[in-house]
Amino acid sequence: MAVRAAVAGASGYAGGEVLRLLLAHPEVEIGALTGNSNAGQRLGSLQPHLLPLADRVLQETTADALAGHDVVFLALPHGQSAAVAEQLGPDVLVVDMGADFRLKDAVDWEKFYGSAHAGTWPYGLPELPGARTRLAGSKRIAVPGCYPTAVTLALFPAYAAGIAEDQAVIVAASGTSGAGKAPKPNLLGSEVMGSMSPYGVGGGHRHTPEMIQNLSEVAGAQVSVSFTPTLAPMPRGILATCSAAARPGVTAEGVRAVYEKAFADEPFVHLLPEGQWPATASVYGSNGVQVQVALDEAVGRIIAISAIDNLTKGTAGGAVQSMNIALGLPEELGLSTIGVAP
Amino acid sequence: MAVRAAVAGASGYAGGEVLRLLLAHPEVEIGALTGNSNAGQRLGSLQPHLLPLADRVLQETTADALAGHDVVFLALPHGQSAAVAEQLGPDVLVVDMGADFRLKDAVDWEKFYGSAHAGTWPYGLPELPGARTRLAGSKRIAVPGCYPTAVTLALFPAYAAGIAEDQAVIVAASGTSGAGKAPKPNLLGSEVMGSMSPYGVGGGHRHTPEMIQNLSEVAGAQVSVSFTPTLAPMPRGILATCSAAARPGVTAEGVRAVYEKAFADEPFVHLLPEGQWPATASVYGSNGVQVQVALDEAVGRIIAISAIDNLTKGTAGGAVQSMNIALGLPEELGLSTIGVAP
Amino acid sequence: MAVRAAVAGASGYAGGEVLRLLLAHPEVEIGALTGNSNAGQRLGSLQPHLLPLADRVLQETTADALAGHDVVFLALPHGQSAAVAEQLGPDVLVVDMGADFRLKDAVDWEKFYGSAHAGTWPYGLPELPGARTRLAGSKRIAVPGCYPTAVTLALFPAYAAGIAEDQAVIVAASGTSGAGKAPKPNLLGSEVMGSMSPYGVGGGHRHTPEMIQNLSEVAGAQVSVSFTPTLAPMPRGILATCSAAARPGVTAEGVRAVYEKAFADEPFVHLLPEGQWPATASVYGSNGVQVQVALDEAVGRIIAISAIDNLTKGTAGGAVQSMNIALGLPEELGLSTIGVAP
Amino acid sequence: MAVRAAVAGASGYAGGEVLRLLLAHPEVEIGALTGNSNAGQRLGSLQPHLLPLADRVLQETTADALAGHDVVFLALPHGQSAAVAEQLGPDVLVVDMGADFRLKDAVDWEKFYGSAHAGTWPYGLPELPGARTRLAGSKRIAVPGCYPTAVTLALFPAYAAGIAEDQAVIVAASGTSGAGKAPKPNLLGSEVMGSMSPYGVGGGHRHTPEMIQNLSEVAGAQVSVSFTPTLAPMPRGILATCSAAARPGVTAEGVRAVYEKAFADEPFVHLLPEGQWPATASVYGSNGVQVQVALDEAVGRIIAISAIDNLTKGTAGGAVQSMNIALGLPEELGLSTIGVAP
Repeated sequence: MAVRAAVAGASGYAGGEVLRLLLAHPEVEIGALTGNSNAGQRLGSLQPHLLPLADRVLQETTADALAGHDVVFLALPHGQSAAVAEQLGPDVLVVDMGADFRLKDAVDWEKFYGSAHAGTWPYGLPELPGARTRLAGSKRIAVPGCYPTAVTLALFPAYAAGIAEDQAVIVAASGTSGAGKAPKPNLLGSEVMGSMSPYGVGGGHRHTPEMIQNLSEVAGAQVSVSFTPTLAPMPRGILATCSAAARPGVTAEGVRAVYEKAFADEPFVHLLPEGQWPATASVYGSNGVQVQVALDEAVGRIIAISAIDNLTKGTAGGAVQSMNIALGLPEELGLSTIGVAP
Repeated sequence: MAVRAAVAGASGYAGGEVLRLLLAHPEVEIGALTGNSNAGQRLGSLQPHLLPLADRVLQETTADALAGHDVVFLALPHGQSAAVAEQLGPDVLVVDMGADFRLKDAVDWEKFYGSAHAGTWPYGLPELPGARTRLAGSKRIAVPGCYPTAVTLALFPAYAAGIAEDQAVIVAASGTSGAGKAPKPNLLGSEVMGSMSPYGVGGGHRHTPEMIQNLSEVAGAQVSVSFTPTLAPMPRGILATCSAAARPGVTAEGVRAVYEKAFADEPFVHLLPEGQWPATASVYGSNGVQVQVALDEAVGRIIAISAIDNLTKGTAGGAVQSMNIALGLPEELGLSTIGVAP
Repeated sequence: MAVRAAVAGASGYAGGEVLRLLLAHPEVEIGALTGNSNAGQRLGSLQPHLLPLADRVLQETTADALAGHDVVFLALPHGQSAAVAEQLGPDVLVVDMGADFRLKDAVDWEKFYGSAHAGTWPYGLPELPGARTRLAGSKRIAVPGCYPTAVTLALFPAYAAGIAEDQAVIVAASGTSGAGKAPKPNLLGSEVMGSMSPYGVGGGHRHTPEMIQNLSEVAGAQVSVSFTPTLAPMPRGILATCSAAARPGVTAEGVRAVYEKAFADEPFVHLLPEGQWPATASVYGSNGVQVQVALDEAVGRIIAISAIDNLTKGTAGGAVQSMNIALGLPEELGLSTIGVAP
Repeated sequence: MAVRAAVAGASGYAGGEVLRLLLAHPEVEIGALTGNSNAGQRLGSLQPHLLPLADRVLQETTADALAGHDVVFLALPHGQSAAVAEQLGPDVLVVDMGADFRLKDAVDWEKFYGSAHAGTWPYGLPELPGARTRLAGSKRIAVPGCYPTAVTLALFPAYAAGIAEDQAVIVAASGTSGAGKAPKPNLLGSEVMGSMSPYGVGGGHRHTPEMIQNLSEVAGAQVSVSFTPTLAPMPRGILATCSAAARPGVTAEGVRAVYEKAFADEPFVHLLPEGQWPATASVYGSNGVQVQVALDEAVGRIIAISAIDNLTKGTAGGAVQSMNIALGLPEELGLSTIGVAP
């Protein structure tokens, strides 16, 4: 008996990616596809890479259109998920790929997003300690942001094991799809090809409080984060270069042991052999995560680096992974750790 | 009962791509992986995107290593396939992704490849008239070249239906993976990013006689081809822009009807709606083909354009598709028409 | 005594490029810079690569703002140049980088641009026979389109010398800056990186009648053109792959002799040595043109290929070159044939 | 009276870039061009973007070939400069773009480069306090590495003014030309396009001791550096994201005042207005440097970010700038702060 899934916001990048993955999911049947400004258009003109859905037509995002599904994926602009979710009833699994239900602290939400806090849903990063239990059977899932996914997976083992001091310093490079499909001059191909540039410098990026929340939780103490995102000339991928001072007495072997233990049973996180470093191309289109860690003894810092596909593991793949857990399906169903390279 | 497959030349781009596809194939079990200069190395360091095979180690390409498989894929430099194939016995399905057995004319082979002609195997382009019959049950398959795949699919309906005059003019742009993984200065990222350049101009490209062979066969008469390949700043994809003079009396509706009929039942070829044009991004990593055709009435030419992924439909996907036919499996098994975009 | 130059439309790509070149021009002093929606903004935020002009502020495009200059460059949307030019008086050199005054045939203009024909100004492609005479002392210059520049330079020697038959078949790849700076979804970096796609197929591109006009003029007879433009994943550059049937009796040596003669004294056009082919990277940011030509004897076609920078020789560099001629300055002043590579 | 300049290593990227700049230098005449494996070849085939030098032929790198010049630029692999420099005599200005004479500490040299230390020459980063005095009249110049140029310019004002604590954390992204022109599989276009990846993680990169040397010198105390370089999918450019803890009491205004003072009279360093951040595209092909700085008050860190062109300001432009100073020419002669964008 198939799981019937609807996607609200099917014309954007997150919506397109969740459809790409659901098409390959053996237990899911794709139901309603909705949009707003694009309602009435063929998906073939909006998402020409999804050939099997080319003749599907977008409906308006209404409660009626979304009714009658087992799962509804929300790929909406920030601030719009709560109103839609309320209309869906408590028995429908609602997976929000937006930011609305990620933060626990209403003050943080209001500071970074400038609107009233909608609430907090179980956080869909299964690799975090205790997360799978919270997700099992849940009817609401807040999918993590793309940067917090990459950064948390790189750093949480160190903070959970108590080998890293406070203040993580993070510089991450993201492909342009992370900035969405709404056309802006600075996202034109002419502008981004051949260029690297930072943005949201100095703590202003909305994903910063989410990283602090995750790392502080596993550390059992407040962790501060210096986060600088940069825009890289590629469509997909996040490379997160993270570091923190090592606690006194920490050794290179000790660091490695912590990470080996943390990821030993993880189906999607691949701790690379020593000496090999992550590359975003290796996880292109895949739900896999490449992680490597080292202790720079000259400066006493743990350097942890992760590579993900921001649209897959960083958004839609993470969403499907959490859906599988919530529905009691095998966690890996319909997901792959094989990148499209070169 | 699984089909056991070996790959000779597993460290290159064609070898890596066939492994990527076989990993997703429900009836195939991956057996021996061989290389030459890379024998003894972990696949994880050579093909880091194939996480499930990371710990596999390459063997030397010997008859012993390749023995005991149902299918052997050859991803070897031109001229090396015959010697390996001879050792494999007549009951093993041998799928050659090199050029060795594509051409029927030994003189053409010697002119373009400069060595003795190895022979001719059934040609693995299932969409060509009669091809599926020739492939069914065959134990030897010559996988078409990437450019001939794109060009033949764009033009064969016009020549088969007799609506195009002789002399096709073709300009195709290919991603750099088509040039292989052997490092050469002109293929460095520094050289190719931001640059378009032609090569093999004036009929010199080795894929030209293969296009002539295909188009002449469906036309029932000699078709001449002016072919100019260009190198585009992208890793994957071929966009083939093809044209030929329309026969007198041909109409735009007539052209469209010919193409609709040719591709009506094709699982991998997608004739786009009128007004929409192919883009290589739409078939990134997929076995799909986007085709569009128009009649430029001002000049009396049929313009047919196709987009493929050179490594998937243009090489390894085409190989798996033909393998499925040869083994009596469903033709689409393990293959997808969903591109990884954006 | 410096030439004082104003630029109307200084916030776009053509406006930015003409400023880049004028900054390096020893006889030009940069005067008023105007825009419309961007009036009042610092140029440093709109064109951050033009550091010496960072503190200049855009004015509105009015007759007053543009008054008092020796030269006014118009980098305006199609259809807006005539109204501005009228206000500038007959003694000011007006260089229009838009399309408004390129075409001689009012019917063609109306068909392709959908508005009333503004007129015809001396055509700023100095390399065309007789062009320098027409440009010397002129007070009005219509700068050619980027594609017509590349295509005309590749093909006019063949048509002028009578060695090519009618019907040129042209496939050209352009960098994305050719599509301008107005944000559109299909021009997002996420969409264009990794993708090649055609547009305006079947004779619909507005640059087609301009190519026909140029080639027919040198041929002394109507030349028809099949033109397919494609969008390439790079910010700058046009590679034009052009071909036409060779007249009977034409030899490879004859073709080469024609091109050697045509470009022998041209300062910006570089006929490459035999066997070397153009690459857009080689003319990145330069006013140079790389051309190569061959006779494909198997099909009887002349293949002529050119590479330019669409913003430099294809727009702003061509504009400055023609300005130099019109003002009686050395034609090469302030222009370079050195590309920025790799 | 022109300065006569020779370039040893004219076929590589550093050699090509210094030629590109010298061609635009009004006081320089280009003399001998030498190479090793490429001796005897036309420069037109090796550096096709340098059209004015296309017919020049490379000589072997010998004392005879390099004799009779006022300036010799060395663009040689590490470890080869000393032997060539010795043969040139004390009156010739030798500008070494390699690493051989950058480090003062022989132990550091041996640790990071694995060979005997050749010595230390005046360090060609004119923006450092006291550097111009040391360079004036010098006959030997060690051009800084590309990463140290970007990092030092971003951070030295903070350390010189005593507003930053020890331990700088740096993550830098470089275009692929920084890795040179020798073909390696990981530098193929197919590998680098669409991918970000780190290398030399954990303090292993050879440029780390050079950064430590520069920052420690201006700080008057040992500064430690955590440096992670990453390879970005672009041909040129370095974006260096640097941070360090702010000393107690430091304010945002104080930080800005320090940087404004440091760069007030610098012709090539452009401190951006508040809120605007560097982009490598803005300095593409230029000798300009974009710098921005902020105080992240939530974490008490100074974030300083710079963008340079690794081949221009990061190598050949820095070399020409220092040559100008050494020869008593205006420092900006032949150099530009105008980037080629978009």
